[in-house]
Amino acid sequence: MSDFDIQAYLEAGRRRVDSALDRLLPPEAEQPANLHKAMRYSVFAGGKRLRPLLALAAAEAVGAQAESVLDEACSLELVHTYTLIHDDLPAMDNDDLRRGMPTSHKVFGEAVAILAGDALQTLGFSVLARAGSLNRHSPGRLIEVVGMLAGAAGSCGVIGGQVVDIESEGRQVSRETLAYIHANKTGKLIEAAVMLGAILGGAEPEQRQALSRYGQAIGLAFQITDDILDVTSTLERLGKTPGKDARSGKATYPGLLGMAEALRMQQQQLDLSLAALAEFNEKAEPLRHIARVMVHRSN
Amino acid sequence: MSDFDIQAYLEAGRRRVDSALDRLLPPEAEQPANLHKAMRYSVFAGGKRLRPLLALAAAEAVGAQAESVLDEACSLELVHTYTLIHDDLPAMDNDDLRRGMPTSHKVFGEAVAILAGDALQTLGFSVLARAGSLNRHSPGRLIEVVGMLAGAAGSCGVIGGQVVDIESEGRQVSRETLAYIHANKTGKLIEAAVMLGAILGGAEPEQRQALSRYGQAIGLAFQITDDILDVTSTLERLGKTPGKDARSGKATYPGLLGMAEALRMQQQQLDLSLAALAEFNEKAEPLRHIARVMVHRSN
Repeated sequence: MSDFDIQAYLEAGRRRVDSALDRLLPPEAEQPANLHKAMRYSVFAGGKRLRPLLALAAAEAVGAQAESVLDEACSLELVHTYTLIHDDLPAMDNDDLRRGMPTSHKVFGEAVAILAGDALQTLGFSVLARAGSLNRHSPGRLIEVVGMLAGAAGSCGVIGGQVVDIESEGRQVSRETLAYIHANKTGKLIEAAVMLGAILGGAEPEQRQALSRYGQAIGLAFQITDDILDVTSTLERLGKTPGKDARSGKATYPGLLGMAEALRMQQQQLDLSLAALAEFNEKAEPLRHIARVMVHRSN
Repeated sequence: MSDFDIQAYLEAGRRRVDSALDRLLPPEAEQPANLHKAMRYSVFAGGKRLRPLLALAAAEAVGAQAESVLDEACSLELVHTYTLIHDDLPAMDNDDLRRGMPTSHKVFGEAVAILAGDALQTLGFSVLARAGSLNRHSPGRLIEVVGMLAGAAGSCGVIGGQVVDIESEGRQVSRETLAYIHANKTGKLIEAAVMLGAILGGAEPEQRQALSRYGQAIGLAFQITDDILDVTSTLERLGKTPGKDARSGKATYPGLLGMAEALRMQQQQLDLSLAALAEFNEKAEPLRHIARVMVHRSN
Protein backbone atom coordinates (compact mmCIF):
# COMPACT_ATOMS: atom_id res chain seq x y z
CA MET A 1 0.00 0.00 0.00
CA SER A 2 3.06 2.25 -0.24
CA ASP A 3 1.67 3.80 -3.42
CA PHE A 4 -1.72 4.52 -1.81
CA ASP A 5 -2.77 7.97 -3.00
CA ILE A 6 -4.49 9.50 0.03
CA GLN A 7 -5.21 12.80 -1.71
CA ALA A 8 -7.06 11.02 -4.53
CA TYR A 9 -8.89 8.86 -1.96
CA LEU A 10 -10.01 11.94 0.00
CA GLU A 11 -11.01 13.84 -3.12
CA ALA A 12 -13.14 10.94 -4.40
CA GLY A 13 -14.72 10.57 -0.95
CA ARG A 14 -15.49 14.28 -0.78
CA ARG A 15 -17.28 14.15 -4.11
CA ARG A 16 -19.42 11.23 -2.91
CA VAL A 17 -20.22 12.99 0.36
CA ASP A 18 -21.10 16.25 -1.41
CA SER A 19 -23.36 14.44 -3.80
CA ALA A 20 -25.10 12.62 -0.93
CA LEU A 21 -25.52 15.87 1.04
CA ASP A 22 -27.05 17.48 -2.03
CA ARG A 23 -29.53 14.60 -2.23
CA LEU A 24 -30.36 14.64 1.50
CA LEU A 25 -30.83 18.40 1.96
CA PRO A 26 -34.25 19.84 1.07
CA PRO A 27 -34.19 21.56 -2.37
CA GLU A 28 -33.85 25.35 -2.32
CA ALA A 29 -37.09 25.66 -4.22
CA GLU A 30 -39.05 23.91 -1.45
CA GLN A 31 -40.81 26.14 1.10
CA PRO A 32 -39.49 27.82 3.20
CA ALA A 33 -37.00 28.64 0.45
CA ASN A 34 -34.90 31.12 2.43
CA LEU A 35 -34.29 28.62 5.24
CA HIS A 36 -33.35 25.85 2.83
CA LYS A 37 -31.04 28.26 1.00
CA ALA A 38 -29.33 29.10 4.31
CA MET A 39 -28.95 25.42 5.21
CA ARG A 40 -27.33 24.68 1.85
CA TYR A 41 -25.18 27.80 1.91
CA SER A 42 -23.36 26.70 5.06
CA VAL A 43 -23.17 22.99 4.20
CA PHE A 44 -21.64 23.80 0.80
CA ALA A 45 -19.29 26.53 2.04
CA GLY A 46 -16.25 24.38 1.36
CA GLY A 47 -15.74 22.02 4.29
CA LYS A 48 -13.11 19.28 4.20
CA ARG A 49 -15.78 16.66 5.08
CA LEU A 50 -13.38 15.18 7.61
CA ARG A 51 -16.11 13.64 9.78
CA PRO A 52 -18.03 11.80 7.04
CA LEU A 53 -14.71 10.67 5.49
CA LEU A 54 -13.66 9.23 8.86
CA ALA A 55 -16.94 7.33 9.07
CA LEU A 56 -16.47 5.89 5.57
CA ALA A 57 -12.87 4.90 6.31
CA ALA A 58 -13.84 3.32 9.65
CA ALA A 59 -16.54 1.25 7.93
CA GLU A 60 -13.95 0.10 5.38
CA ALA A 61 -11.49 -0.74 8.16
CA VAL A 62 -13.97 -3.28 9.59
CA GLY A 63 -14.67 -4.79 6.17
CA ALA A 64 -17.82 -2.95 5.07
CA GLN A 65 -18.35 -1.00 1.86
CA ALA A 66 -17.95 2.76 2.32
CA GLU A 67 -21.07 3.25 0.20
CA SER A 68 -23.18 1.38 2.76
CA VAL A 69 -22.72 4.14 5.36
CA LEU A 70 -22.53 7.15 3.02
CA ASP A 71 -25.92 8.70 3.80
CA GLU A 72 -25.56 8.05 7.53
CA ALA A 73 -22.08 9.62 7.51
CA CYS A 74 -23.66 12.81 6.18
CA SER A 75 -25.52 13.20 9.50
CA LEU A 76 -22.13 14.08 11.03
CA GLU A 77 -21.53 16.89 8.56
CA LEU A 78 -25.05 18.25 9.10
CA VAL A 79 -24.58 18.33 12.87
CA HIS A 80 -21.05 19.75 12.51
CA THR A 81 -22.29 22.52 10.21
CA TYR A 82 -25.05 23.46 12.66
CA THR A 83 -22.49 23.91 15.45
CA LEU A 84 -20.36 26.15 13.19
CA ILE A 85 -23.32 28.38 12.29
CA HIS A 86 -24.25 28.84 15.95
CA ASP A 87 -20.61 29.31 17.07
CA ASP A 88 -20.23 32.17 14.58
CA LEU A 89 -23.29 34.10 15.86
CA PRO A 90 -22.80 37.59 17.32
CA ALA A 91 -23.78 36.30 20.78
CA MET A 92 -21.03 33.64 20.54
CA ASP A 93 -17.72 34.09 18.67
CA ASN A 94 -19.11 36.88 16.46
CA ASP A 95 -17.24 35.78 13.35
CA ASP A 96 -17.84 37.45 9.99
CA LEU A 97 -15.87 34.90 7.98
CA ARG A 98 -15.85 31.11 7.86
CA ARG A 99 -13.80 29.20 5.31
CA GLY A 100 -13.22 32.50 3.54
CA MET A 101 -16.92 33.23 3.08
CA PRO A 102 -19.33 35.49 4.97
CA THR A 103 -20.93 33.61 7.86
CA SER A 104 -24.61 32.63 7.78
CA HIS A 105 -25.91 35.49 9.93
CA LYS A 106 -24.02 37.98 7.74
CA VAL A 107 -25.83 36.68 4.66
CA PHE A 108 -29.26 35.66 5.99
CA GLY A 109 -29.60 37.60 9.23
CA GLU A 110 -29.47 36.27 12.78
CA ALA A 111 -32.97 34.77 12.95
CA VAL A 112 -32.58 32.62 9.85
CA ALA A 113 -29.02 31.65 10.83
CA ILE A 114 -30.19 30.36 14.21
CA LEU A 115 -33.07 28.47 12.60
CA ALA A 116 -30.89 27.05 9.80
CA GLY A 117 -28.56 25.68 12.49
CA ASP A 118 -31.52 24.23 14.39
CA ALA A 119 -32.87 22.59 11.24
CA LEU A 120 -29.48 21.10 10.30
CA GLN A 121 -29.26 19.42 13.70
CA THR A 122 -32.76 18.00 13.24
CA LEU A 123 -31.92 16.85 9.72
CA GLY A 124 -28.92 14.94 11.05
CA PHE A 125 -31.25 12.75 13.08
CA SER A 126 -33.77 12.57 10.22
CA VAL A 127 -31.12 11.13 7.95
CA LEU A 128 -30.34 8.35 10.43
CA ALA A 129 -34.03 7.53 10.85
CA ARG A 130 -34.49 7.51 7.09
CA ALA A 131 -31.87 4.76 6.85
CA GLY A 132 -34.20 2.73 9.07
CA SER A 133 -37.28 3.22 6.94
CA LEU A 134 -35.24 2.23 3.85
CA ASN A 135 -33.88 -0.88 5.63
CA ARG A 136 -30.30 0.24 4.95
CA HIS A 137 -29.27 -0.86 8.44
CA SER A 138 -30.83 -2.74 11.33
CA PRO A 139 -32.96 -0.50 13.58
CA GLY A 140 -30.89 -1.68 16.57
CA ARG A 141 -27.65 -0.33 15.12
CA LEU A 142 -29.33 2.88 13.98
CA ILE A 143 -30.87 3.67 17.35
CA GLU A 144 -27.47 3.03 18.93
CA VAL A 145 -25.94 5.54 16.51
CA VAL A 146 -28.69 8.08 17.29
CA GLY A 147 -27.80 7.78 20.98
CA MET A 148 -24.09 8.01 20.35
CA LEU A 149 -24.41 11.04 18.07
CA ALA A 150 -26.80 12.78 20.46
CA GLY A 151 -24.44 12.09 23.35
CA ALA A 152 -21.46 13.49 21.42
CA ALA A 153 -23.38 16.57 20.28
CA GLY A 154 -25.17 17.29 23.57
CA SER A 155 -24.64 19.20 26.80
CA CYS A 156 -21.87 16.84 27.92
CA GLY A 157 -20.28 16.90 24.44
CA VAL A 158 -19.92 19.58 21.75
CA ILE A 159 -22.33 22.04 23.39
CA GLY A 160 -20.69 21.61 26.80
CA GLY A 161 -17.30 22.34 25.24
CA GLN A 162 -18.64 25.47 23.56
CA VAL A 163 -20.16 26.77 26.82
CA VAL A 164 -16.92 26.33 28.75
CA ASP A 165 -14.96 27.83 25.84
CA ILE A 166 -17.12 30.97 25.93
CA GLU A 167 -16.98 31.18 29.72
CA SER A 168 -13.17 30.90 29.60
CA GLU A 169 -12.60 33.67 27.09
CA GLY A 170 -10.16 36.32 28.33
CA ARG A 171 -9.39 34.28 31.44
CA GLN A 172 -6.36 32.21 32.36
CA VAL A 173 -7.46 28.59 32.03
CA SER A 174 -5.85 25.47 33.46
CA ARG A 175 -4.54 22.64 31.33
CA GLU A 176 -7.53 20.57 32.59
CA THR A 177 -10.04 23.15 31.36
CA LEU A 178 -8.32 23.39 27.99
CA ALA A 179 -8.39 19.60 27.71
CA TYR A 180 -12.12 19.61 28.61
CA ILE A 181 -12.92 22.23 25.97
CA HIS A 182 -11.03 20.44 23.23
CA ALA A 183 -12.18 16.93 24.14
CA ASN A 184 -15.80 18.06 24.01
CA LYS A 185 -16.01 20.88 21.48
CA THR A 186 -14.02 19.06 18.81
CA GLY A 187 -13.00 15.62 20.02
CA LYS A 188 -16.36 14.01 20.76
CA LEU A 189 -17.81 14.51 17.28
CA ILE A 190 -14.62 13.26 15.60
CA GLU A 191 -14.70 10.14 17.76
CA ALA A 192 -18.44 9.81 17.01
CA ALA A 193 -17.63 9.92 13.29
CA VAL A 194 -15.25 6.98 13.62
CA MET A 195 -17.73 5.08 15.80
CA LEU A 196 -20.64 5.68 13.41
CA GLY A 197 -18.67 3.94 10.68
CA ALA A 198 -17.59 1.21 13.09
CA ILE A 199 -21.08 0.45 14.42
CA LEU A 200 -22.91 0.57 11.08
CA GLY A 201 -20.02 -1.29 9.43
CA GLY A 202 -20.50 -4.14 11.91
CA ALA A 203 -17.34 -3.84 14.03
CA GLU A 204 -16.59 -6.54 16.63
CA PRO A 205 -16.31 -5.39 20.28
CA GLU A 206 -12.47 -5.33 20.25
CA GLN A 207 -12.50 -3.43 16.97
CA ARG A 208 -14.87 -0.90 18.47
CA GLN A 209 -12.57 -0.34 21.42
CA ALA A 210 -9.55 0.12 19.19
CA LEU A 211 -11.41 2.52 16.91
CA SER A 212 -12.63 4.50 19.90
CA ARG A 213 -8.98 4.94 21.00
CA TYR A 214 -8.06 5.94 17.45
CA GLY A 215 -10.91 8.47 17.37
CA GLN A 216 -9.96 10.05 20.67
CA ALA A 217 -6.32 10.40 19.67
CA ILE A 218 -7.01 11.99 16.28
CA GLY A 219 -9.65 14.25 17.82
CA LEU A 220 -7.05 15.72 20.13
CA ALA A 221 -4.38 15.79 17.41
CA PHE A 222 -6.83 17.66 15.17
CA GLN A 223 -7.47 20.36 17.74
CA ILE A 224 -3.80 20.81 18.64
CA THR A 225 -3.13 21.19 14.90
CA ASP A 226 -5.88 23.81 14.65
CA ASP A 227 -4.29 25.75 17.52
CA ILE A 228 -0.84 25.54 15.94
CA LEU A 229 -2.18 26.72 12.57
CA ASP A 230 -3.89 29.65 14.25
CA VAL A 231 -0.39 30.85 15.18
CA THR A 232 1.58 29.87 12.09
CA SER A 233 -0.80 30.17 9.14
CA THR A 234 -1.90 33.06 6.97
CA LEU A 235 -5.40 34.39 6.23
CA GLU A 236 -5.22 33.12 2.67
CA ARG A 237 -4.42 29.54 3.58
CA LEU A 238 -6.67 29.38 6.66
CA GLY A 239 -9.81 31.00 5.20
CA LYS A 240 -10.36 32.75 8.53
CA THR A 241 -8.43 35.37 10.43
CA PRO A 242 -5.28 33.77 11.89
CA GLY A 243 -4.16 34.70 15.38
CA LYS A 244 -7.78 35.53 16.25
CA ASP A 245 -7.96 32.93 18.99
CA ALA A 246 -4.81 34.23 20.66
CA ARG A 247 -5.92 37.88 20.43
CA SER A 248 -9.45 37.20 21.71
CA GLY A 249 -7.91 35.50 24.74
CA LYS A 250 -9.02 32.00 23.77
CA ALA A 251 -7.04 29.22 25.35
CA THR A 252 -4.83 27.30 22.91
CA TYR A 253 -2.18 24.60 23.32
CA PRO A 254 0.73 26.70 22.03
CA GLY A 255 -0.48 29.60 24.21
CA LEU A 256 -0.73 27.49 27.34
CA LEU A 257 2.16 25.04 26.87
CA GLY A 258 4.45 26.72 24.34
CA MET A 259 4.93 25.74 20.70
CA ALA A 260 7.54 23.03 21.33
CA GLU A 261 5.31 21.15 23.77
CA ALA A 262 2.29 21.57 21.50
CA LEU A 263 4.21 20.01 18.60
CA ARG A 264 5.38 17.17 20.85
CA MET A 265 1.79 16.44 21.97
CA GLN A 266 0.60 16.54 18.38
CA GLN A 267 3.13 13.85 17.39
CA GLN A 268 2.28 11.80 20.48
CA GLN A 269 -1.43 11.70 19.59
CA LEU A 270 -0.62 10.76 16.00
CA ASP A 271 1.50 7.86 17.29
CA LEU A 272 -1.28 6.76 19.63
CA SER A 273 -3.84 6.81 16.84
CA LEU A 274 -1.63 4.61 14.64
CA ALA A 275 -0.87 2.24 17.53
CA ALA A 276 -4.63 1.78 18.09
CA LEU A 277 -4.86 0.39 14.54
CA ALA A 278 -2.03 -2.14 15.01
CA GLU A 279 -4.32 -5.17 14.80
CA PHE A 280 -6.10 -3.98 11.64
CA ASN A 281 -5.12 -5.13 8.16
CA GLU A 282 -4.56 -3.06 5.02
CA LYS A 283 -8.24 -2.06 4.94
CA ALA A 284 -7.39 0.40 7.72
CA GLU A 285 -4.80 2.09 5.50
CA PRO A 286 -7.13 5.03 4.69
CA LEU A 287 -7.66 5.64 8.45
CA ARG A 288 -3.88 5.64 9.00
CA HIS A 289 -3.34 8.08 6.16
CA ILE A 290 -6.13 10.36 7.35
CA ALA A 291 -4.47 10.61 10.76
CA ARG A 292 -1.18 11.67 9.15
CA VAL A 293 -2.84 14.12 6.77
CA MET A 294 -4.80 15.68 9.63
CA VAL A 295 -1.69 16.76 11.50
CA HIS A 296 0.32 17.72 8.42
CA ARG A 297 -2.35 19.91 6.82
CA SER A 298 -1.87 23.61 6.23
CA ASN A 299 -5.45 24.78 6.75
CA MET B 1 -67.22 7.60 32.27
CA SER B 2 -69.45 10.60 32.93
CA ASP B 3 -67.74 11.13 36.27
CA PHE B 4 -64.26 11.07 34.73
CA ASP B 5 -62.26 13.84 36.43
CA ILE B 6 -60.09 15.25 33.64
CA GLN B 7 -58.47 17.87 35.87
CA ALA B 8 -57.30 15.21 38.34
CA TYR B 9 -56.13 13.05 35.41
CA LEU B 10 -54.10 15.91 33.93
CA GLU B 11 -52.66 16.91 37.29
CA ALA B 12 -51.52 13.36 38.05
CA GLY B 13 -50.04 13.08 34.56
CA ARG B 14 -48.20 16.39 34.95
CA ARG B 15 -46.59 15.20 38.16
CA ARG B 16 -45.39 12.01 36.49
CA VAL B 17 -44.04 13.95 33.50
CA ASP B 18 -42.28 16.48 35.74
CA SER B 19 -40.70 13.73 37.77
CA ALA B 20 -39.52 11.96 34.61
CA LEU B 21 -38.12 15.20 33.17
CA ASP B 22 -36.24 15.78 36.42
CA ARG B 23 -34.73 12.32 36.11
CA LEU B 24 -33.84 12.69 32.41
CA LEU B 25 -32.27 16.17 32.52
CA PRO B 26 -28.59 16.37 33.55
CA PRO B 27 -28.23 17.47 37.21
CA GLU B 28 -27.43 21.15 37.75
CA ALA B 29 -24.28 20.19 39.62
CA GLU B 30 -22.88 18.41 36.55
CA GLN B 31 -20.48 20.38 34.35
CA PRO B 32 -21.17 22.68 32.56
CA ALA B 33 -23.38 23.77 35.48
CA ASN B 34 -24.61 27.02 33.94
CA LEU B 35 -25.85 25.28 30.80
CA HIS B 36 -27.65 22.58 32.77
CA LYS B 37 -29.18 25.24 35.00
CA ALA B 38 -30.48 27.06 31.92
CA MET B 39 -31.91 23.85 30.45
CA ARG B 40 -33.75 23.09 33.69
CA TYR B 41 -34.89 26.68 34.17
CA SER B 42 -36.88 26.67 30.93
CA VAL B 43 -38.17 23.11 31.21
CA PHE B 44 -39.48 23.79 34.74
CA ALA B 45 -40.90 27.24 34.00
CA GLY B 46 -44.45 25.98 34.40
CA GLY B 47 -45.58 24.40 31.15
CA LYS B 48 -48.87 22.57 30.86
CA ARG B 49 -47.08 19.44 29.52
CA LEU B 50 -49.74 19.16 26.85
CA ARG B 51 -47.53 17.23 24.39
CA PRO B 52 -46.32 14.51 26.78
CA LEU B 53 -49.85 14.18 28.19
CA LEU B 54 -51.21 13.66 24.68
CA ALA B 55 -48.62 10.93 24.10
CA LEU B 56 -49.59 9.16 27.35
CA ALA B 57 -53.30 9.41 26.54
CA ALA B 58 -52.76 8.16 22.97
CA ALA B 59 -50.84 5.14 24.28
CA GLU B 60 -53.71 4.42 26.68
CA ALA B 61 -56.24 4.79 23.86
CA VAL B 62 -54.59 1.89 21.99
CA GLY B 63 -54.46 -0.28 25.10
CA ALA B 64 -50.90 0.36 26.41
CA GLN B 65 -49.90 1.53 29.89
CA ALA B 66 -49.18 5.27 30.03
CA GLU B 67 -46.10 4.49 32.13
CA SER B 68 -44.57 2.50 29.26
CA VAL B 69 -44.16 5.64 27.13
CA LEU B 70 -43.49 8.17 29.92
CA ASP B 71 -39.78 8.76 29.30
CA GLU B 72 -40.22 8.82 25.54
CA ALA B 73 -43.09 11.32 25.88
CA CYS B 74 -40.66 13.67 27.64
CA SER B 75 -38.69 14.01 24.38
CA LEU B 76 -41.64 16.06 23.10
CA GLU B 77 -41.43 18.51 25.99
CA LEU B 78 -37.65 18.84 25.58
CA VAL B 79 -38.01 19.65 21.88
CA HIS B 80 -40.95 21.96 22.54
CA THR B 81 -39.01 23.86 25.22
CA TYR B 82 -36.03 24.30 22.88
CA THR B 83 -38.29 25.91 20.26
CA LEU B 84 -39.71 28.30 22.89
CA ILE B 85 -36.24 29.40 24.05
CA HIS B 86 -35.14 30.12 20.48
CA ASP B 87 -38.45 31.80 19.54
CA ASP B 88 -38.03 34.23 22.46
CA LEU B 89 -34.50 35.35 21.42
CA PRO B 90 -33.91 39.01 20.53
CA ALA B 91 -33.28 38.05 16.90
CA MET B 92 -36.70 36.32 16.78
CA ASP B 93 -39.78 37.42 18.77
CA ASN B 94 -37.68 39.30 21.35
CA ASP B 95 -39.86 38.32 24.31
CA ASP B 96 -38.88 39.20 27.88
CA LEU B 97 -41.57 37.07 29.52
CA ARG B 98 -42.70 33.48 29.03
CA ARG B 99 -45.30 31.88 31.29
CA GLY B 100 -44.92 34.89 33.59
CA MET B 101 -41.16 34.40 34.06
CA PRO B 102 -38.15 36.14 32.49
CA THR B 103 -37.09 34.34 29.31
CA SER B 104 -33.87 32.33 29.16
CA HIS B 105 -31.72 34.97 27.43
CA LYS B 106 -32.86 37.52 30.03
CA VAL B 107 -31.57 35.29 32.83
CA PHE B 108 -28.58 33.52 31.27
CA GLY B 109 -27.61 35.76 28.35
CA GLU B 110 -28.05 35.09 24.67
CA ALA B 111 -25.14 32.68 24.18
CA VAL B 112 -26.21 30.28 26.91
CA ALA B 113 -29.88 30.58 25.87
CA ILE B 114 -29.05 29.54 22.30
CA LEU B 115 -26.89 26.66 23.53
CA ALA B 116 -29.46 25.53 26.12
CA GLY B 117 -32.02 25.33 23.32
CA ASP B 118 -29.59 23.40 21.14
CA ALA B 119 -28.86 20.96 23.96
CA LEU B 120 -32.56 20.40 24.73
CA GLN B 121 -33.18 19.41 21.13
CA THR B 122 -30.27 16.97 21.27
CA LEU B 123 -31.49 15.58 24.60
CA GLY B 124 -34.90 14.88 23.06
CA PHE B 125 -33.26 12.44 20.65
CA SER B 126 -30.97 11.07 23.39
CA VAL B 127 -33.99 10.16 25.46
CA LEU B 128 -35.50 8.16 22.60
CA ALA B 129 -32.20 6.35 21.96
CA ARG B 130 -31.86 5.60 25.68
CA ALA B 131 -35.18 3.75 25.55
CA GLY B 132 -33.50 1.50 22.98
CA SER B 133 -30.46 0.72 25.10
CA LEU B 134 -32.79 -0.08 28.03
CA ASN B 135 -34.96 -2.33 25.81
CA ARG B 136 -38.06 -0.33 26.74
CA HIS B 137 -39.28 -0.52 23.15
CA SER B 138 -38.27 -2.30 19.96
CA PRO B 139 -35.53 -0.48 18.03
CA GLY B 140 -37.78 -0.52 14.97
CA ARG B 141 -40.52 1.49 16.66
CA LEU B 142 -37.99 3.84 18.26
CA ILE B 143 -36.20 4.67 15.01
CA GLU B 144 -39.61 5.31 13.44
CA VAL B 145 -40.39 7.75 16.26
CA VAL B 146 -36.99 9.45 15.82
CA GLY B 147 -37.83 10.00 12.16
CA MET B 148 -41.34 11.22 12.89
CA LEU B 149 -40.19 13.63 15.62
CA ALA B 150 -37.33 14.94 13.47
CA GLY B 151 -39.72 15.45 10.57
CA ALA B 152 -42.20 17.33 12.76
CA ALA B 153 -39.48 19.51 14.33
CA GLY B 154 -37.46 20.16 11.16
CA SER B 155 -37.35 22.62 8.28
CA CYS B 156 -40.67 21.39 6.86
CA GLY B 157 -42.25 21.37 10.35
CA VAL B 158 -41.86 23.57 13.42
CA ILE B 159 -38.80 25.44 12.12
CA GLY B 160 -40.41 26.05 8.75
CA GLY B 161 -43.47 27.49 10.47
CA GLN B 162 -41.31 29.78 12.59
CA VAL B 163 -39.40 31.08 9.53
CA VAL B 164 -42.57 31.92 7.62
CA ASP B 165 -44.07 33.46 10.79
CA ILE B 166 -41.08 35.80 11.12
CA GLU B 167 -41.06 36.62 7.41
CA SER B 168 -44.79 37.45 7.56
CA GLU B 169 -44.57 39.85 10.49
CA GLY B 170 -46.09 43.24 9.74
CA ARG B 171 -47.33 42.03 6.35
CA GLN B 172 -50.81 41.13 5.18
CA VAL B 173 -50.87 37.34 4.92
CA SER B 174 -53.29 35.12 3.09
CA ARG B 175 -55.41 32.50 4.76
CA GLU B 176 -53.16 29.87 3.15
CA THR B 177 -50.02 31.36 4.69
CA LEU B 178 -51.67 31.56 8.10
CA ALA B 179 -52.72 27.91 7.79
CA TYR B 180 -49.14 26.98 6.82
CA ILE B 181 -47.66 28.81 9.82
CA HIS B 182 -50.07 27.23 12.29
CA ALA B 183 -50.00 23.73 10.83
CA ASN B 184 -46.21 23.72 11.04
CA LYS B 185 -45.22 25.91 13.98
CA THR B 186 -47.72 24.37 16.38
CA GLY B 187 -49.69 21.62 14.68
CA LYS B 188 -46.93 19.23 13.62
CA LEU B 189 -45.49 18.73 17.10
CA ILE B 190 -48.94 18.22 18.64
CA GLU B 191 -49.73 15.62 16.01
CA ALA B 192 -46.28 14.07 16.61
CA ALA B 193 -47.11 13.81 20.32
CA VAL B 194 -50.23 11.80 19.59
CA MET B 195 -48.36 9.63 17.08
CA LEU B 196 -45.48 8.96 19.47
CA GLY B 197 -47.94 7.48 21.95
CA ALA B 198 -49.71 5.60 19.16
CA ILE B 199 -46.57 4.06 17.64
CA LEU B 200 -44.88 3.11 20.91
CA GLY B 201 -48.21 1.94 22.32
CA GLY B 202 -48.54 -0.49 19.42
CA ALA B 203 -51.42 1.06 17.44
CA GLU B 204 -52.86 -0.86 14.47
CA PRO B 205 -52.71 0.89 11.05
CA GLU B 206 -56.37 2.06 11.18
CA GLN B 207 -55.86 3.34 14.72
CA ARG B 208 -52.81 5.27 13.57
CA GLN B 209 -54.76 6.93 10.79
CA ALA B 210 -57.57 7.90 13.15
CA LEU B 211 -55.14 9.26 15.74
CA SER B 212 -53.32 11.23 13.06
CA ARG B 213 -56.63 12.90 12.11
CA TYR B 214 -57.32 13.56 15.81
CA GLY B 215 -53.85 15.10 16.23
CA GLN B 216 -54.21 17.38 13.21
CA ALA B 217 -57.61 18.63 14.35
CA ILE B 218 -56.57 19.39 17.93
CA GLY B 219 -53.34 20.98 16.71
CA LEU B 220 -55.33 23.49 14.71
CA ALA B 221 -57.93 23.91 17.48
CA PHE B 222 -55.11 24.61 19.92
CA GLN B 223 -53.64 27.37 17.77
CA ILE B 224 -56.98 29.01 17.03
CA THR B 225 -57.61 28.99 20.80
CA ASP B 226 -54.21 30.62 21.39
CA ASP B 227 -55.07 33.34 18.89
CA ILE B 228 -58.48 33.92 20.49
CA LEU B 229 -56.95 34.11 23.97
CA ASP B 230 -54.39 36.63 22.71
CA VAL B 231 -57.35 38.94 22.06
CA THR B 232 -59.60 38.14 25.00
CA SER B 233 -57.32 37.25 27.90
CA THR B 234 -55.47 39.32 30.49
CA LEU B 235 -51.76 39.44 31.33
CA GLU B 236 -52.39 37.71 34.65
CA ARG B 237 -54.18 34.71 33.20
CA LEU B 238 -52.02 34.40 30.10
CA GLY B 239 -48.57 34.74 31.71
CA LYS B 240 -47.44 36.75 28.70
CA THR B 241 -48.42 40.07 27.25
CA PRO B 242 -51.88 39.73 25.66
CA GLY B 243 -52.59 41.48 22.37
CA LYS B 244 -48.90 41.32 21.57
CA ASP B 245 -49.40 39.24 18.44
CA ALA B 246 -51.97 41.66 17.08
CA ARG B 247 -49.85 44.75 17.84
CA SER B 248 -46.66 43.26 16.40
CA GLY B 249 -48.55 42.60 13.19
CA LYS B 250 -48.58 38.81 13.58
CA ALA B 251 -51.24 37.02 11.62
CA THR B 252 -53.99 35.48 13.78
CA TYR B 253 -57.30 33.79 13.02
CA PRO B 254 -59.49 36.43 14.68
CA GLY B 255 -57.42 39.13 12.97
CA LEU B 256 -57.75 37.56 9.53
CA LEU B 257 -61.25 36.05 9.69
CA GLY B 258 -62.99 37.89 12.50
CA MET B 259 -63.81 36.54 15.95
CA ALA B 260 -67.09 34.85 14.98
CA GLU B 261 -65.47 32.82 12.20
CA ALA B 262 -62.50 31.97 14.45
CA LEU B 263 -64.87 30.60 17.12
CA ARG B 264 -66.75 28.62 14.48
CA MET B 265 -63.52 27.06 13.18
CA GLN B 266 -62.43 26.24 16.72
CA GLN B 267 -65.66 24.30 17.33
CA GLN B 268 -65.39 22.60 13.94
CA GLN B 269 -61.89 21.29 14.72
CA LEU B 270 -63.02 20.07 18.14
CA ASP B 271 -65.87 18.17 16.49
CA LEU B 272 -63.47 16.68 13.92
CA SER B 273 -61.10 15.53 16.66
CA LEU B 274 -63.91 13.77 18.52
CA ALA B 275 -65.25 12.21 15.31
CA ALA B 276 -61.80 10.76 14.62
CA LEU B 277 -62.08 8.81 17.88
CA ALA B 278 -65.52 7.35 17.09
CA GLU B 279 -64.22 3.77 16.76
CA PHE B 280 -62.26 3.89 20.04
CA ASN B 281 -63.62 2.54 23.31
CA GLU B 282 -63.62 4.16 26.76
CA LYS B 283 -59.82 4.01 26.91
CA ALA B 284 -59.83 7.02 24.57
CA GLU B 285 -61.86 9.02 27.09
CA PRO B 286 -58.79 10.99 28.27
CA LEU B 287 -58.02 11.98 24.66
CA ARG B 288 -61.62 13.18 24.21
CA HIS B 289 -61.47 15.22 27.40
CA ILE B 290 -58.10 16.72 26.51
CA ALA B 291 -59.54 17.98 23.22
CA ARG B 292 -62.40 19.69 25.06
CA VAL B 293 -60.12 21.13 27.75
CA MET B 294 -57.75 22.49 25.12
CA VAL B 295 -60.36 24.69 23.50
CA HIS B 296 -62.07 25.72 26.75
CA ARG B 297 -58.91 26.76 28.60
CA SER B 298 -58.31 30.32 29.78
CA ASN B 299 -54.53 30.43 29.36
